[in-house]
Amino acid sequence: MDFAFSERALEIQQRAEEFLRECVYPAEETFAAQVAERPDSWDSPPIMEELKQEARKRGLWNLFLPHSEFGAGLSNLEYAPIAELTGRSPLIAPEAMNCAAPDTGNMEILTMFGTPAQQERWLKPLLEGEIRSCFSMTEPEVASSDATNIATRIERDGDSYVVTGRKWWSSGAMNPRCKVSIVMGVSDPDGPRHRRHSMILVPFGTPGMTVVRPTTVFGYTDASHGGHAEILFEGVRVPASNLLGVENEGFALAQARLGPGRIHHCMRLIGMAERALELMCKRTLSRSTFGRVIAEHGVVQEWIAEARIRLEQARLLVLKTAWLMDTVGNKGAAMEISAIKVVAPETARWVIDKAIQAHGAAGVSQDTPLANLYSHARTLQLADGPDEVHRRSVARRELSRWR
Amino acid sequence: MDFAFSERALEIQQRAEEFLRECVYPAEETFAAQVAERPDSWDSPPIMEELKQEARKRGLWNLFLPHSEFGAGLSNLEYAPIAELTGRSPLIAPEAMNCAAPDTGNMEILTMFGTPAQQERWLKPLLEGEIRSCFSMTEPEVASSDATNIATRIERDGDSYVVTGRKWWSSGAMNPRCKVSIVMGVSDPDGPRHRRHSMILVPFGTPGMTVVRPTTVFGYTDASHGGHAEILFEGVRVPASNLLGVENEGFALAQARLGPGRIHHCMRLIGMAERALELMCKRTLSRSTFGRVIAEHGVVQEWIAEARIRLEQARLLVLKTAWLMDTVGNKGAAMEISAIKVVAPETARWVIDKAIQAHGAAGVSQDTPLANLYSHARTLQLADGPDEVHRRSVARRELSRWR
Amino acid sequence: MDFAFSERALEIQQRAEEFLRECVYPAEETFAAQVAERPDSWDSPPIMEELKQEARKRGLWNLFLPHSEFGAGLSNLEYAPIAELTGRSPLIAPEAMNCAAPDTGNMEILTMFGTPAQQERWLKPLLEGEIRSCFSMTEPEVASSDATNIATRIERDGDSYVVTGRKWWSSGAMNPRCKVSIVMGVSDPDGPRHRRHSMILVPFGTPGMTVVRPTTVFGYTDASHGGHAEILFEGVRVPASNLLGVENEGFALAQARLGPGRIHHCMRLIGMAERALELMCKRTLSRSTFGRVIAEHGVVQEWIAEARIRLEQARLLVLKTAWLMDTVGNKGAAMEISAIKVVAPETARWVIDKAIQAHGAAGVSQDTPLANLYSHARTLQLADGPDEVHRRSVARRELSRWR
Amino acid sequence: MDFAFSERALEIQQRAEEFLRECVYPAEETFAAQVAERPDSWDSPPIMEELKQEARKRGLWNLFLPHSEFGAGLSNLEYAPIAELTGRSPLIAPEAMNCAAPDTGNMEILTMFGTPAQQERWLKPLLEGEIRSCFSMTEPEVASSDATNIATRIERDGDSYVVTGRKWWSSGAMNPRCKVSIVMGVSDPDGPRHRRHSMILVPFGTPGMTVVRPTTVFGYTDASHGGHAEILFEGVRVPASNLLGVENEGFALAQARLGPGRIHHCMRLIGMAERALELMCKRTLSRSTFGRVIAEHGVVQEWIAEARIRLEQARLLVLKTAWLMDTVGNKGAAMEISAIKVVAPETARWVIDKAIQAHGAAGVSQDTPLANLYSHARTLQLADGPDEVHRRSVARRELSRWR
Repeated sequence: MDFAFSERALEIQQRAEEFLRECVYPAEETFAAQVAERPDSWDSPPIMEELKQEARKRGLWNLFLPHSEFGAGLSNLEYAPIAELTGRSPLIAPEAMNCAAPDTGNMEILTMFGTPAQQERWLKPLLEGEIRSCFSMTEPEVASSDATNIATRIERDGDSYVVTGRKWWSSGAMNPRCKVSIVMGVSDPDGPRHRRHSMILVPFGTPGMTVVRPTTVFGYTDASHGGHAEILFEGVRVPASNLLGVENEGFALAQARLGPGRIHHCMRLIGMAERALELMCKRTLSRSTFGRVIAEHGVVQEWIAEARIRLEQARLLVLKTAWLMDTVGNKGAAMEISAIKVVAPETARWVIDKAIQAHGAAGVSQDTPLANLYSHARTLQLADGPDEVHRRSVARRELSRWR
Repeated sequence: MDFAFSERALEIQQRAEEFLRECVYPAEETFAAQVAERPDSWDSPPIMEELKQEARKRGLWNLFLPHSEFGAGLSNLEYAPIAELTGRSPLIAPEAMNCAAPDTGNMEILTMFGTPAQQERWLKPLLEGEIRSCFSMTEPEVASSDATNIATRIERDGDSYVVTGRKWWSSGAMNPRCKVSIVMGVSDPDGPRHRRHSMILVPFGTPGMTVVRPTTVFGYTDASHGGHAEILFEGVRVPASNLLGVENEGFALAQARLGPGRIHHCMRLIGMAERALELMCKRTLSRSTFGRVIAEHGVVQEWIAEARIRLEQARLLVLKTAWLMDTVGNKGAAMEISAIKVVAPETARWVIDKAIQAHGAAGVSQDTPLANLYSHARTLQLADGPDEVHRRSVARRELSRWR
Repeated sequence: MDFAFSERALEIQQRAEEFLRECVYPAEETFAAQVAERPDSWDSPPIMEELKQEARKRGLWNLFLPHSEFGAGLSNLEYAPIAELTGRSPLIAPEAMNCAAPDTGNMEILTMFGTPAQQERWLKPLLEGEIRSCFSMTEPEVASSDATNIATRIERDGDSYVVTGRKWWSSGAMNPRCKVSIVMGVSDPDGPRHRRHSMILVPFGTPGMTVVRPTTVFGYTDASHGGHAEILFEGVRVPASNLLGVENEGFALAQARLGPGRIHHCMRLIGMAERALELMCKRTLSRSTFGRVIAEHGVVQEWIAEARIRLEQARLLVLKTAWLMDTVGNKGAAMEISAIKVVAPETARWVIDKAIQAHGAAGVSQDTPLANLYSHARTLQLADGPDEVHRRSVARRELSRWR
Repeated sequence: MDFAFSERALEIQQRAEEFLRECVYPAEETFAAQVAERPDSWDSPPIMEELKQEARKRGLWNLFLPHSEFGAGLSNLEYAPIAELTGRSPLIAPEAMNCAAPDTGNMEILTMFGTPAQQERWLKPLLEGEIRSCFSMTEPEVASSDATNIATRIERDGDSYVVTGRKWWSSGAMNPRCKVSIVMGVSDPDGPRHRRHSMILVPFGTPGMTVVRPTTVFGYTDASHGGHAEILFEGVRVPASNLLGVENEGFALAQARLGPGRIHHCMRLIGMAERALELMCKRTLSRSTFGRVIAEHGVVQEWIAEARIRLEQARLLVLKTAWLMDTVGNKGAAMEISAIKVVAPETARWVIDKAIQAHGAAGVSQDTPLANLYSHARTLQLADGPDEVHRRSVARRELSRWR
């Protein structure tokens, strides 16, 4: 294991840190104000375009993409501390640097499996930050934690495929700039369990595709990011050339997409938790109860210590996972990806929760980012596979050593 | 200890159960729809007035008030299971039965300490459910978990008092029907630590009183209940006759108010958690993953068992506390009040969190009440004294036995 | 629910308290010294006989037995606080008052199911405290948490039964005064799952019965209580009249035995935890670190508060369970018995563990009873059904309400 | 961060693994039997000498010592996986490879601060594994978690020092081969808080030095390692040349000793937990309950997954700490040393506890190493600084970043 960074990686880290400090943190108040002024908008507020230009100017653009033809060509290990930094201001920094989910996963998949035509039409404007995209996998009517339950149909009909089903949690889909969805569905109902599904590109506006409603997360609409949509596909017909990769290989594509997607979430979660810990320290140093500065109360010190201890461990496991993905591939890192997918949200959630408690009622309000960070961390114990499914994978792998 | 209920109490319980089943649960969907239709309203939706009339007709009105002159005259123990039932539908049932915080605490205090004139002007319309009220104690600029930090000034000036300061988390204050606030502030800065504060009635609309903004709770505005307001008091002058009880005895009044207030919250939290457990069972019995009904997975069964085990214990401690309040008074029950104030939110939070996990992404959305219940339970680990302060009280009492 | 005690019960409680204070606590040092002096003995030390006489003289004898023909005739609810008191000095008080497991369960079963001859030969000397007995159920070669795995054979052969198998954790069996074992085994291998087993009385010394070795619990031999033995039964022949109750009804007998057995353990565990909490308070009040009395450190106060809060809840659930057993029978209380069987050991373990931490290295040594109490509480998460099996029962019952 | 190992380190790891597999694991049964046969012995059983010779022959000797003049010259990072391996059989492997506490710490301190004469007399035979030694710091009469409480006096008198005080938890001191104690005491009562203490070598047998009694750990005497002794020093006179390092610099020496000592404990704890996890997997794969192999129960799989996830994180933090100690020194790694000192025992304890539960009653008995491992992990939450003190250090360091 070697977690040392190249000169180039260190240099980009430093630039990213400066960008956060000089541009992103100072923009947070404006961002919030602009969002508050446009209660019916599902798009990011105007300041975002300025930040995107600035980030691009500073060479902080598409850093997530390991394929140097299209992106920065950083390894997972090199990208980890940068993604962590973006997690410190998760409503702003990832999008400003064109590193926001679900676009990142979609760009990744288009890079690896897209045809030149698909890349020209969708990948290019995504890499430019001109359009946004969504990913439609989860369904309201089945327990999608077992992905084989997915029931949406993708049926071949001449030169077309016809998509029929109901999806939800298509994040970003409420955004007027969201132009395409990658939809997963059953293309061969009688095929082997993990070779029944395909993925297909469905442009927004295709007849039969209806964005039904947004869903909320703990009361948040996540509107500035395009929210989360329920989408109905009623006999939606798209050209056969919209198929992504090979027919019936949707599971393999999902895995290719989810590996990096999961670790990116984890990296950002570490950043969120670091931000929460910083806020907790600052707040408890600035107020007093019962005759002493809050930070001097033993119980609060235990929270701070425990937060630091948990964060150190979680970050190291994220780095190891990234290093494994770089050296033995996503499949070789499957156990570790599952492990951090359990650890990072739990750690972030714990730290953020204590930071909330340390802030008193301000902690649950809009005056700190904490409650929103919490809702994000909590949701990631469900999204991209719930904890229980990941623990099951880890256990099976462990047990297989001794069978 | 005797937790047996009188015939009358059992009969009211049964009626409350019927009201929930026949009127409240069926109204939940309409309630949500009406709220969604009036995004800018801070008042409860129209269906609430119907439910209030129905509850009153059924003799389910002001049950919280132990003083039989004004209310039902139930003991705390008798009220406990009824309050628990209202917690099963906390956005609707408490208000429908005129048992919603913070009005209940204000009615209690006006019953005990109000002058006849105060009772005529404020208590009567509150008991009728015609107006609403708020309680202004917490302040944004100090750590209010140590109540001696409260800094708002209540200064005598001739026949008036002048109130100056900034409060927040005045729940219900955004509601157009909210007509009065009970404000706590410093009236004798040089008095002994717990005899410096007074409480005073400040009618909405008094010059100098400004409702500044609402604060949110995990993204929720709680608009249907009048939200939570930050209120600025700039030299607000009210007649001296608005003082509640004796000058400089605000702490004693706060204790009188908070004892019942805290246990009512706890009773309702048990009901919330019971509702969440019911939802968890029903959901996990209705879906399958990996070849078996979710409820058959061992991990889920552990959640369900643990939820039941924790709820049984928490409810018993609530009942014991109520029984103590009835038999030895709020002061004699102080340790137990602190204890349940820690236990009930933590228990509810744990159960609701597992119910969320069992529902997958639906659990954090508006399609179940769970995320909203969670935000409520979490907030009660801060409101009315954070857990840490209550644990400190319990510890000091325990240690005093051995000093 | 009515947890009020009769005058008689209160009077016995008071006497038991006096006995503890006047006789048992003062004897603890002598007890430990006498045990240390007789390292090879598996019997209780001499002081125990004095204490037994004293307890008997004070009318504190066989209080566990609800059958007034043979015992005190106390209800489960009445016995609960007395059993709790004995748990405060668990190596001495239960035996001194002839209320120690496993004899209590064996006496119970002989009272309910024993023939007059069996009662004359075994029950009478047990009630007199003249002999001791053991219970042989668990087996080393199968997972006995699923009791249907039990494999020892009890085969009819003419006027005899022949017992063949290997048992362990026959507590008390190393004691030279242990004269009989109640053995559970398969008598009808082809019978329905829960009607295959029988129980039979096997006198120590019967040919073919060999006490193989003692097993330890976290390094403790529990020698003063007769330890825990592995016993080999090689074609052990006993008269058919030694059968307990009806053939093939061993499961029903086990249930009859285990209900009271489990709640008695739970009552005593509450007492153990109360003792640990008392020791924690006293110790932390008597020493200082970093310039303040240890009890003034916030972290320690959280332990103390949490201990008190958990204990209050656990005790109430024990009382409710006892009350249910008294009013609707053991079967009607099955859910609650499982629930306290999970709660009481976990609570005791948590409290004792914190008390250990508060004592520093003394906590794990022989200078406090804490490490021994811990080993006891921990073992009860395995004995009489592991937590996982009890949680499973609770979950199934909960789910059955919603199926 | 670079956790890559040198060729030499990898080669030694492999040899250590072979030694465990070929010699240590197979010797465990014999070791236990020899210990059982010699109940009154405080020395390691005869097989240990064979194993020591074998380890030495294989070049697995004094690997802990980073000073190549006396030891293997491995860095902390290089030693970490080897120490972890020894933790898999902690009663045998560390001593067999002459890497057992407290001798390791004493050898370290003698290497760094010993005079040539001290090294000749004590270090040499320790390095040869001919004698053993103990460390006398903790005292029964004060809370030693605050080391400034230490009260034993070391007073200069002419050419001698006179030691007066009572120590306990001098591990190894019951062993007849234990020849010297390093004693910490107050040499300048009026000096600054951390410059009052000195360390001095006191040979066993010096007049006035009495080994009073052994203390137990959860019922274990740890006799095969020389137990843990209470030692009384009554005016014990030793030559002034026995002083270790500089007078009144005992705290600095203690820190020099404790840094490596703590991380070695943590490395071994990871190994203990790995062994427990292996045992848990094997056991649950080999037995069945309720119709399925225990390892197939979801609850057990959660334990296994959680164990693996926690172990991965804890090991990485140990490696990072070792790497920091190698690169920026013990002082630069102080926060991380405190952090792993909290994490490693807690992780090991959790894993071992679940392994116990998975084994049923066998888990607490002598038939598995688990209960003994548990007692060891639990004790390390107290020894070398209790968790609370280490968390306090971590918190203070974190807060100092924001002051």
